[in-house]
Amino acid sequence: MKILVTGGAGFIGSHLCDRLLQENHEVIVVDNLITGSLDNIAHLAGREDFHFIKHDVSNFIYIPGKVDYVMHLASPASPNPNSPFGYPQLPIQTLKVGALGTHNALGVARAHNSQFLLASTSEVYGDPQQHPQKESYWGHVDPVGPRSVYDEAKRFAEAITMAYHRYHGIETHIARIFNTYGPRMRLDDGRVIPNFLCQALREEPLTIYGDGNQTRSFCYVDDLVDGLYRLMLSQEHEPVNLGNPHEMSIQELALTVNRLTKNPAGVQLLADQRAPADPQQRQPDIHRAKEILDWEPQIDLEEGLLKTIDDFRRRL
Amino acid sequence: MKILVTGGAGFIGSHLCDRLLQENHEVIVVDNLITGSLDNIAHLAGREDFHFIKHDVSNFIYIPGKVDYVMHLASPASPNPNSPFGYPQLPIQTLKVGALGTHNALGVARAHNSQFLLASTSEVYGDPQQHPQKESYWGHVDPVGPRSVYDEAKRFAEAITMAYHRYHGIETHIARIFNTYGPRMRLDDGRVIPNFLCQALREEPLTIYGDGNQTRSFCYVDDLVDGLYRLMLSQEHEPVNLGNPHEMSIQELALTVNRLTKNPAGVQLLADQRAPADPQQRQPDIHRAKEILDWEPQIDLEEGLLKTIDDFRRRL
Repeated sequence: MKILVTGGAGFIGSHLCDRLLQENHEVIVVDNLITGSLDNIAHLAGREDFHFIKHDVSNFIYIPGKVDYVMHLASPASPNPNSPFGYPQLPIQTLKVGALGTHNALGVARAHNSQFLLASTSEVYGDPQQHPQKESYWGHVDPVGPRSVYDEAKRFAEAITMAYHRYHGIETHIARIFNTYGPRMRLDDGRVIPNFLCQALREEPLTIYGDGNQTRSFCYVDDLVDGLYRLMLSQEHEPVNLGNPHEMSIQELALTVNRLTKNPAGVQLLADQRAPADPQQRQPDIHRAKEILDWEPQIDLEEGLLKTIDDFRRRL
Repeated sequence: MKILVTGGAGFIGSHLCDRLLQENHEVIVVDNLITGSLDNIAHLAGREDFHFIKHDVSNFIYIPGKVDYVMHLASPASPNPNSPFGYPQLPIQTLKVGALGTHNALGVARAHNSQFLLASTSEVYGDPQQHPQKESYWGHVDPVGPRSVYDEAKRFAEAITMAYHRYHGIETHIARIFNTYGPRMRLDDGRVIPNFLCQALREEPLTIYGDGNQTRSFCYVDDLVDGLYRLMLSQEHEPVNLGNPHEMSIQELALTVNRLTKNPAGVQLLADQRAPADPQQRQPDIHRAKEILDWEPQIDLEEGLLKTIDDFRRRL
């Protein structure tokens, strides 16, 4: 198949490109490189089955020739207000790519009569009042809160994707992606694993915002991409959670990172400095993914962290 | 002031134009006339302080000269799936005007350094689990459900409005408008008051979907427009509920309509035919509007219905 990947120069997007090429598909990446990087796809340059277009999908896009599949991953995704690549620093761009970008990407799918996959997010659940989160949970999001530029953009993206399915008959798929980590994450991404790895490899204490008891679950990127690939080939139109249900505290993650990197500097607790509206807990219920896609994560945290540490050490 | 009103040929929009002109403002209406009608503004044609542009605000718009205020009301608003003017029949247009339309309208405000008011909706609360609904309630909306084309579009509109306030420094205002009725509602609007009035004036039984115990509150349009006008002149950026807190059952409304119209035909209960995801109850908490705007509805249901009946009788 000939597959258009928006955000294909990003962290998850570039791993998805690797997998699609490995499965003998042809790939066209559209990326404006605001948060993505050519470094992530430099190893693919020159291949006949790989094409790169520098373009912001929030502006109208026309792809000549045949397109069999559109996979819409483009968006800032880090919630960190201190990172220049987090969506709090890119609020209008984040809103635009969720709404106009999704509309344009769906327009490509419609023009080519191709299938469509939306990379949505666990953030549609907001600060959830149900644990773990099932796909049937409607979420708990403040439409005018500081995180709404991302959360509401993605909820809108889901709504318009379903509308194109229902009213234009497009074969659409919606992945709700939970926390994912792995090689090629931006060093300055601002999320907890890149932060910890950079600090650990510099032998600095790992900074924990809050008391460290807030829990997260982390999915290694190869597992996530395998889930996306299975969803892409499925017949499923309703949202499917993709993430690792293994929950751990931030404190526990910090100790694991320090052990694997042999970082002697320990941790530093900043109890009063939780990010605004930072959810206390988020964990996927992946029963639907297991049942429909025969998918569950295969790579445990230690194995995934070791691969990620190798990559971070090389880039630091 | 010179005021741009998107959706100004619609039901609420046209009443707002009347009020703005009465307050000696100049008005430019932008409306694509998909759900609005020139009949609603025919009485304003030829005035020097009134201008009409037939345009879809979901497409880029440029207004030459000075604009002091942008009031963004454009959107399909009826949830009735059987009405050709309800958003279930206009799903993509509804999503577009909420996202692209709001983005374009905010763009006009930014270009002219003018103030902005968003007509949002009680539908951002979805099928609420809190009664009555305060503005601080985050709502209960299914992002991929049948009503999400309207609900998520409006939630997105609120999010991008707040983002333009926070990041571009635009003076913005958000009204969450609850059920409103009055003269100039489309006869085929599909919502309960127009349906009942048309049936009553034809001496047909009033059709009640469900058991008739679901409750609603109805605000007369002059009251609503007064609230919008006060909000427009205020300094308030956070959402403000505008609606009538007087709650009644659909059954009670039907009996009142039949009494006022002297309709002998009674009611017909269609107990199994509730619209999909039709909320059981919705009622505004208007404490903020009272406190900030010194506003509350003045016109009771009987008085408002009598004025509306006059108008419907003339048009039927």
